[in-house]
Amino acid sequence: MTQGFFYPRTASGRASLLPSPPWFYSGDLLTVEYRTDPAKVAALLPAPLSLADEDPGAVALIWADWQSCGASRAELIDPVRSQYKETFVVVRCSFEGRTFSRCVFIWVDKDFAMLRGIHQGYPKKMGSIHQTRPHPMPQGAPGFASGAQFGATLAAGDRRLAEAVISLRAPSESAGFVNGHPMAHHRVYPSIAGGGDAYVELIESGAEQVQIGETWSADVDHMELFDSPTEELADLSVDEIIGGYYRQIGVVWNGGRTLARLEG
Amino acid sequence: MTQGFFYPRTASGRASLLPSPPWFYSGDLLTVEYRTDPAKVAALLPAPLSLADEDPGAVALIWADWQSCGASRAELIDPVRSQYKETFVVVRCSFEGRTFSRCVFIWVDKDFAMLRGIHQGYPKKMGSIHQTRPHPMPQGAPGFASGAQFGATLAAGDRRLAEAVISLRAPSESAGFVNGHPMAHHRVYPSIAGGGDAYVELIESGAEQVQIGETWSADVDHMELFDSPTEELADLSVDEIIGGYYRQIGVVWNGGRTLARLEG
Amino acid sequence: MTQGFFYPRTASGRASLLPSPPWFYSGDLLTVEYRTDPAKVAALLPAPLSLADEDPGAVALIWADWQSCGASRAELIDPVRSQYKETFVVVRCSFEGRTFSRCVFIWVDKDFAMLRGIHQGYPKKMGSIHQTRPHPMPQGAPGFASGAQFGATLAAGDRRLAEAVISLRAPSESAGFVNGHPMAHHRVYPSIAGGGDAYVELIESGAEQVQIGETWSADVDHMELFDSPTEELADLSVDEIIGGYYRQIGVVWNGGRTLARLEG
Amino acid sequence: MTQGFFYPRTASGRASLLPSPPWFYSGDLLTVEYRTDPAKVAALLPAPLSLADEDPGAVALIWADWQSCGASRAELIDPVRSQYKETFVVVRCSFEGRTFSRCVFIWVDKDFAMLRGIHQGYPKKMGSIHQTRPHPMPQGAPGFASGAQFGATLAAGDRRLAEAVISLRAPSESAGFVNGHPMAHHRVYPSIAGGGDAYVELIESGAEQVQIGETWSADVDHMELFDSPTEELADLSVDEIIGGYYRQIGVVWNGGRTLARLEG
Repeated sequence: MTQGFFYPRTASGRASLLPSPPWFYSGDLLTVEYRTDPAKVAALLPAPLSLADEDPGAVALIWADWQSCGASRAELIDPVRSQYKETFVVVRCSFEGRTFSRCVFIWVDKDFAMLRGIHQGYPKKMGSIHQTRPHPMPQGAPGFASGAQFGATLAAGDRRLAEAVISLRAPSESAGFVNGHPMAHHRVYPSIAGGGDAYVELIESGAEQVQIGETWSADVDHMELFDSPTEELADLSVDEIIGGYYRQIGVVWNGGRTLARLEG
Repeated sequence: MTQGFFYPRTASGRASLLPSPPWFYSGDLLTVEYRTDPAKVAALLPAPLSLADEDPGAVALIWADWQSCGASRAELIDPVRSQYKETFVVVRCSFEGRTFSRCVFIWVDKDFAMLRGIHQGYPKKMGSIHQTRPHPMPQGAPGFASGAQFGATLAAGDRRLAEAVISLRAPSESAGFVNGHPMAHHRVYPSIAGGGDAYVELIESGAEQVQIGETWSADVDHMELFDSPTEELADLSVDEIIGGYYRQIGVVWNGGRTLARLEG
Repeated sequence: MTQGFFYPRTASGRASLLPSPPWFYSGDLLTVEYRTDPAKVAALLPAPLSLADEDPGAVALIWADWQSCGASRAELIDPVRSQYKETFVVVRCSFEGRTFSRCVFIWVDKDFAMLRGIHQGYPKKMGSIHQTRPHPMPQGAPGFASGAQFGATLAAGDRRLAEAVISLRAPSESAGFVNGHPMAHHRVYPSIAGGGDAYVELIESGAEQVQIGETWSADVDHMELFDSPTEELADLSVDEIIGGYYRQIGVVWNGGRTLARLEG
Repeated sequence: MTQGFFYPRTASGRASLLPSPPWFYSGDLLTVEYRTDPAKVAALLPAPLSLADEDPGAVALIWADWQSCGASRAELIDPVRSQYKETFVVVRCSFEGRTFSRCVFIWVDKDFAMLRGIHQGYPKKMGSIHQTRPHPMPQGAPGFASGAQFGATLAAGDRRLAEAVISLRAPSESAGFVNGHPMAHHRVYPSIAGGGDAYVELIESGAEQVQIGETWSADVDHMELFDSPTEELADLSVDEIIGGYYRQIGVVWNGGRTLARLEG
């Protein structure tokens, strides 16, 4: 009898790359929201999803600097196992009359984060992700103050894919609207024999026990997406900046539910 | 309509982390075969698998230094996308009277290799993997000659997990027997709602178009497995060394077939 | 005419790996102070240095998580160029009747930090360094509170070299005494012809514009040094824990002065 | 009494990041030679160097995939300590009527290689470097054959800086002429007090015991240099391709000699 969430499964379950949910997160999010051509968003929404009714071309490009752990919290004192960064692209979509958020591209920098994504339906690749950290000492860091600048970059395959610089404007209630709905993701598992998927479903999941800290609106001083032969991020061209945000957050993720079983 | 093998899926499929199989590989394998307590192997074999009839405690610890690509071969000239290394642990097992090989632990150093593993049923984590490379110039490298020494190391989570040193003995027909059967792997996809798996199957897959190059038997000068709070590799303790091998190989992987659908 | 601090030097100086000092730093320091055999410290002090008069076997093992920049502050918004981590070992020594701190071993994770060290006389190698970060949201991180646990690890050459876990006890004026003096470092440049050094000097340097933030004393719950064939850190064995500390700090470094020119 | 080449220096010398020379290398070099504006080369040649008399705008952009070690050869069986890659840019220059090669920019991926460069006068930064490897099995790699394609890429600071693709043409005696002379490098050590250098010299060094293996001329199918705010590589614009080469080589480096002591 073997046990362990996802894999590897062993008698004790100790070697499993992931503990069972719930998973616990504390981190900082740097967000740039912008508008692209809604047709480009629609092209990323497979059936049975459709474009959101309002502002369907809105996109959120989000950098996140996390510490996370399972229920034992053991990862927190061996921080190579708890710290990771990610950059992800969120759009909105509609399913059966409800509006969902949906991550269409995402890069992370640790294996446990990549495997979580496969469970949650995030299409995770590995990348090199950096974002400026706030610090109370001003010598080599910005603080939480109007005009403080934060930069963020993403690279994968030894190519820079995105960069942004924001300047904090004022404390804010909101950190944007694109990533504010439950996530609607496809979970897919290709068939081992080829020719389609062995398993496909549309699932919904969301954050629990959300706790919000410092939240600032920001001006977007700079934002650039770069082309790559293996990426389509730059195709979501930046037609109009909506706004920038910086937020500290704590959150728990504890599974989701199937919205629809689909044909592979 | 979106396309792309596994994910992300887009209108063009260009951003997909993996091309569809077949996948093409050329590389070098450094193998140490040893015996551990068969009960430890049995503990890693979930139903419906059982211990192999002969030499059931045999284990192969294998380092591999690969270049690989899809049918377009585009990865080969952007080598950050084709080169990767892995260390994996293979045992044998029995299913319906046939003997299979089975990978019980594996570490790789690139995301595309990790995602391939999820498709193929290899329980891949990320690690830091190194093995000495043969080179025709002797100043800073061994060649293919009796007595030439090759080292290999594996680390994950900033801990060294395994190291081996072998000395080539003589050209050999064989590179060991543990990794010589079709692979029998579980493919699992945990349920998004918790409480078991949404999809589980036992699959069989194997290599096609295998082409064998230099193959040497070797003495195992050194072999050590190290403990880690998140690994169980060292529990497969080295009771008796069987032998060492070095081999150059080319291979194609093009899917497999389901042996049994299982309950999640 | 080429310009640029250290190298490479070009007509514009733009490609230089380092801007000219001053260099500006904001970061978090996790410190464990302990006593080892003073003879082991003495063995690391070349002439003309000698052991400090009081508590000569005291050692500080310090993890630091930095953002840093030059006068332009350009690095701060391209954070791959400003963020780095380091683990360093500090002892004290005496020169001409004054007590100095001295870094005897240090690992960093960025090239610009390594090159700064060669300028400043820090014997920097590259390593993989992690330390728990405080965060205001408790889901996946400790905060500044009594009992909050922080872990720290160091690896190099794919081997873990050190790990520590501390629990915050109470706000503190002090963050230890070992790293509290100006640094006395040897700057050496081996002769290109072999047989000694082309240039050797003993220099003194220190921090300017030091600004102290949150500072906590801590219990040291765990502390272990690991052996490696290429390191001597573990030889500075932990005979007695003095104490643990966590501190946020901002500082400027702007050069030093020669204490003594030495024979190579 | 402490010992050890460069640093750190200890009683045993065991922890030294580098063994004393000689250093031993085996590896593969992928070279693209091209012409740029000679004025751009001249701008990288500080006094007392001047442009080479013939073909003064010739540049070699070279990728190298090395294994290296000291006299003990211990690094070879712990290959994380022996394997590294580098990309470097070589021009020629004239000093006292002799022609020298000179490395003006270079990136490596290991700390020991970076420290060697500081000793040898190579202006080394850290980068991410990849080049296609030849392999006897054709499934996932090119071999030594006419038309076989090899790619090479360089990134630093999460930006791609250079990429090239060559196709082997025919076995060749030569692997180019730009990197064929003894190296003339400045060794600099900035003053700790600011305001110039504490030590500067022009040195000459070269390879010993050079052993040449497979050498092929090649067509340059693709070659691109990319801009970066912290690099000047792209300023050496590719006006005319001279040729491409692939070579396997073994070499020993054992110090050099001072050509001129210079004012700091």
